Amino acid sequence: MANRSPVRDLPGAAQFSKSVSESDVYQFAGLSGDLHPIHVNAAYASSQPVGQRIAHGVILIGLMSSACTLWAAREGLDIVSYGWDEIRFIKPVFFGDTITTSYAQDPEREPVGQKWYSVADAYNQHGELVGVGRHTAYVT
Amino acid sequence: MANRSPVRDLPGAAQFSKSVSESDVYQFAGLSGDLHPIHVNAAYASSQPVGQRIAHGVILIGLMSSACTLWAAREGLDIVSYGWDEIRFIKPVFFGDTITTSYAQDPEREPVGQKWYSVADAYNQHGELVGVGRHTAYVT
Repeated sequence: MANRSPVRDLPGAAQFSKSVSESDVYQFAGLSGDLHPIHVNAAYASSQPVGQRIAHGVILIGLMSSACTLWAAREGLDIVSYGWDEIRFIKPVFFGDTITTSYAQDPEREPVGQKWYSVADAYNQHGELVGVGRHTAYVT
Repeated sequence: MANRSPVRDLPGAAQFSKSVSESDVYQFAGLSGDLHPIHVNAAYASSQPVGQRIAHGVILIGLMSSACTLWAAREGLDIVSYGWDEIRFIKPVFFGDTITTSYAQDPEREPVGQKWYSVADAYNQHGELVGVGRHTAYVT
């Protein structure tokens, strides 16, 4: 899965970029209730293999959703999210990293009724793949 | 998938409950960049089948992650999130809904090396199943 082609190269791909701040992570910890120390406890995180606090993986799904929203707006589609599959957090996202997500229709899967199938990925500012996923949108 | 047994009934299940507020949704829209009008535009949402603004599905994944974090703390496991599969948003989550998520090891999948497999679900205050997912944790 990590070896697949970048989503940005697929026809009609939409992209979204954002630097993930400490405040993003702390706001997300508060609103979700996920206060895992790897996200909000610098002393704990420094004792772990990753060595420092990291963003919640779920934030990365949110950034991929943003690319989805831009894609749907451009396509003129009213959608709601049906679900995600094969989400993988490939590398950690550190505070301050700039993440670029891409979203495009899966070239290997035609829509079935109101369900549209897409692929998404996320790269950091070093060009490293940090996450991937498959999304199903329900077109209303 | 929607017909499977509630995760709360599985051995060792952890639970987390939270009412999802308008501020949660608006904070998440800001930090993720996902300003889809179904989440932040009441006039648009009222024109859609769902009839009102709904929470981002990704917030629901965050609430399931919170149950995961509580589960890992109780089990004394240091984990990072490896990924999610088969996430389905079964019913909309409206502002003010109280969501209870549950997380437990998948009774049908033994850990493989450092990968531990779990299931998660989410119910609203009416006892309706609103979301499900499968999680893989990487035990460090």
